[in-house]
Amino acid sequence: MKSVTWNNLSNSRSFARLRTLPRPQQKPVESAAVGEQEIPITDALRYNYAAKGVTTEIEHALAAVAEEQQCIDKFEALAAGEVINSGEQRMVLHHLTRGQLMQSLLESADGLAQFYDQQHRRVADFASAVHQGRIKGSTGKPFDTVVQIGIGGSDLGPRAIYLALKNYALASAEGLKMRAHFISNVDPDDAAEVMSQLDPQTTLFILVSKSGTTQETLTNEAFVVELMQRAKIAGLQPHKHMIAVTSQTSPLASSDSYLDAFFIDDYIGGRYSSTSAVGSTILTLALGERIVAEFLRGAHDADRSALNRNVRSNAALMDALIGIYERNILGYPATAVLPYSQALSRFPAHLQQLDMESNGKSVNRYGKAIDYSTGPIIFGEPGTNGQHSFYQLLHQGTNIVPLQFIGFQSSQLQTDITVDGSTSQSKLNANLAAQIVAFSHGKSDADPNKSFSGGRPSSLLYAERLTPHTLGALLAHYENKVMFQGFLWNINSFDQEGVQLGKLLAKQLLSGHADGALGAYASMLQV
Amino acid sequence: MKSVTWNNLSNSRSFARLRTLPRPQQKPVESAAVGEQEIPITDALRYNYAAKGVTTEIEHALAAVAEEQQCIDKFEALAAGEVINSGEQRMVLHHLTRGQLMQSLLESADGLAQFYDQQHRRVADFASAVHQGRIKGSTGKPFDTVVQIGIGGSDLGPRAIYLALKNYALASAEGLKMRAHFISNVDPDDAAEVMSQLDPQTTLFILVSKSGTTQETLTNEAFVVELMQRAKIAGLQPHKHMIAVTSQTSPLASSDSYLDAFFIDDYIGGRYSSTSAVGSTILTLALGERIVAEFLRGAHDADRSALNRNVRSNAALMDALIGIYERNILGYPATAVLPYSQALSRFPAHLQQLDMESNGKSVNRYGKAIDYSTGPIIFGEPGTNGQHSFYQLLHQGTNIVPLQFIGFQSSQLQTDITVDGSTSQSKLNANLAAQIVAFSHGKSDADPNKSFSGGRPSSLLYAERLTPHTLGALLAHYENKVMFQGFLWNINSFDQEGVQLGKLLAKQLLSGHADGALGAYASMLQV
Repeated sequence: MKSVTWNNLSNSRSFARLRTLPRPQQKPVESAAVGEQEIPITDALRYNYAAKGVTTEIEHALAAVAEEQQCIDKFEALAAGEVINSGEQRMVLHHLTRGQLMQSLLESADGLAQFYDQQHRRVADFASAVHQGRIKGSTGKPFDTVVQIGIGGSDLGPRAIYLALKNYALASAEGLKMRAHFISNVDPDDAAEVMSQLDPQTTLFILVSKSGTTQETLTNEAFVVELMQRAKIAGLQPHKHMIAVTSQTSPLASSDSYLDAFFIDDYIGGRYSSTSAVGSTILTLALGERIVAEFLRGAHDADRSALNRNVRSNAALMDALIGIYERNILGYPATAVLPYSQALSRFPAHLQQLDMESNGKSVNRYGKAIDYSTGPIIFGEPGTNGQHSFYQLLHQGTNIVPLQFIGFQSSQLQTDITVDGSTSQSKLNANLAAQIVAFSHGKSDADPNKSFSGGRPSSLLYAERLTPHTLGALLAHYENKVMFQGFLWNINSFDQEGVQLGKLLAKQLLSGHADGALGAYASMLQV
Repeated sequence: MKSVTWNNLSNSRSFARLRTLPRPQQKPVESAAVGEQEIPITDALRYNYAAKGVTTEIEHALAAVAEEQQCIDKFEALAAGEVINSGEQRMVLHHLTRGQLMQSLLESADGLAQFYDQQHRRVADFASAVHQGRIKGSTGKPFDTVVQIGIGGSDLGPRAIYLALKNYALASAEGLKMRAHFISNVDPDDAAEVMSQLDPQTTLFILVSKSGTTQETLTNEAFVVELMQRAKIAGLQPHKHMIAVTSQTSPLASSDSYLDAFFIDDYIGGRYSSTSAVGSTILTLALGERIVAEFLRGAHDADRSALNRNVRSNAALMDALIGIYERNILGYPATAVLPYSQALSRFPAHLQQLDMESNGKSVNRYGKAIDYSTGPIIFGEPGTNGQHSFYQLLHQGTNIVPLQFIGFQSSQLQTDITVDGSTSQSKLNANLAAQIVAFSHGKSDADPNKSFSGGRPSSLLYAERLTPHTLGALLAHYENKVMFQGFLWNINSFDQEGVQLGKLLAKQLLSGHADGALGAYASMLQV
């Protein structure tokens, strides 16, 4: 394995050269390009960037930047257990939760692959005991509902994945194992509302906090216990309805108050923890072991493809490089993620966290200020809904917003009808194809209000159907894209110091130390 | 009433002068300012902009821009029935759905105030017959569930409002009248999933389309009818379970296939239709007449305050002007909307449509190209969730994103507990106060990775509690802010030609006319 050196993007000669190249004229995408500019991620999932307007010359220059910034060497170093999270001096091992990428990791991080795998197996055994009624609620009723109490990385990813696969499970032979709900916000209305929909006797709660000290999560745990007690159900013991997902050193790990505990560690960042026990516990309970195994396999397959040294065969790297080009050369401040799939309704919210929390940084991995733009704003909603909402600005606004479409040839539930000669799924995909072309080609009109300038770049991730395997690959594709962009910008994508100041001030306020403006706002809000 | 002239922002002398003023140093917000820079919108809702870093000098200059661009004169002209929607040559009358603002409208648009009011009353009578069981399902069971089938403006606003007030209704003496669901996407998985949760015998569907030709909505109507028929329930007549909200000239209005129909007209744009029958039908059925009346009253009260000629007493105008300053002088491309209230979880998605579809334009109201930035990107999620997600970028990213916080002193369900000496509601608001101060003040640290530059501007809309009246005012505040920004930019905020090209191409594709790139994408997606 090559040793790596860490350099700012602004010191890269290849990047300097990229700047000198003529910018593409954003020509309308041609049908020939549609077949050519495409990279497989797995057997099922493909990344098509024909409508990005990237010329062969720019593609080559981007490949040179990836080479000079040692993107693949750095991914290999990460996968082999080097301390990539420089700020917190930690390894970055979320890839290991879905499979071994580098044999050498066995030496540098002995036992961790086994540890993550063991947790998945413990989860599967526990889930199977719950499904078979061997583990029951404290009043003797079987569990049929599971509630994740967690926030940020312990909420957005697992929630998005559950929503994405719930209907897949429903339509499968085994069906959905348990209904899942999520409590995240410290707003008391969040927990109160979820609780109002549940029968506490048949509900299992999963408390998820790596540190075991997350304010929202501990508060919501107490909230749930209190509401269960207020229900005054004879024999109901709240802590017999709770399991924990936490690190082995956290206060939760050693507590007797839980039915069981499953573990993660410091090498799995919150926003990268969907494939660790943070995600697998609720997903295995709700969807079953088989679906989770396929999901993990999909992520692993995408990870393997992200190790490819040829940019033209590495979709995550190509996606990352085009993003850098759009951000640092073309100066676009945001990217929209637009899944044409209602099942992916919360996937953009997860990607918003993954990307903005990882790469919304102003210092390099050594803590020195950098003088170029890093992570863009990420937002999005499912199509066709977005078409009737914010697409107006995307088509005719004064800023260009690069677009990432996601689409599937078939629906998940496979319940469909034909109206006016086409199915709903055909209408959905006709709209998707039409949007890609409309954004790229534009249209001139004698009335400038009805003119479309075109030249608005987009890419498309697509597969036959949104299966667990494809979803795993989709998730890993974005994780790897964000990782590569961090390497290119020379920032640490695995810490989040920017969330600390607010926490600190809130704590001061709650312990009565509020003066000046903080006190003024607190009194306005009756804290 | 003054006659108005329409000028580009770039021709405004006051705006040119604003450019020459020293930019504020983005000083940390001081406690004295917190009490001073605040404007009441209604008795309950207030707009605080102390943390926006706007100096008195800039405030005066902004007031001069508002004066020169005749913002209030134009609002009066709009309210009096002038043809403000220049592209489509229509009046803009959504304010009239919640009350009369200008007496003169009675002359220029005779009967329309009565028309909107009559529709609300017809809706209330119908809802009351449903609630009392005088109108029942076709198999004789009372209706307990209502489903809105609509997209864009017929979906996002009503959905956000229902979610915002559902718990308020639950906690009220009368309770929730009916459960509501929404079907919007043409993705067949959307309708199939909603239908799988319902008993068709007790469900009432509302088909909402102004034109009566919206592809998604008509397809989903057919979808719902088909699924009801497939259920093979003896005596079930799908069209006895359907009402329509449409314009009087649409194909739906004259159909015998509906139990009843309620009307809107061309003077109510989709994204402004939440206070028309588009919103009031589902909201009255689900929440009851009293809550809807309070909601409309809140919107009307905010409208009245937006007519105030003194910018220091007109929160919508001040909010609009500060937005222009941030967009056109400071060059910030996006704004985040951050409600500290789980009930407002989908309110940012509604505002995203309202703002981006209204002001994402590149031509002025006469169809001439303009040379300055218009509508920003709008995105957001509830706090404290967002704190554990994208706030990292907001605090330490390389772009500054102006923030709009929303907060309430008390919770909606009033179910709360004390943990570590504070309630969940106190924790929620301590976090909100802490964030405002953290973004403004920042914090220096020897480790640049732990430093916060501060100077990140925010405003706060706050009230005692999220009531129907307050929500109405909040909604109208944003509608009026967007309207004022349209006046300032000299664009037409009431059309949406940018959504047409995609529709056209999708239609071509579905009728078999696909070649070139469009055909290539269609075949890739198996359209």
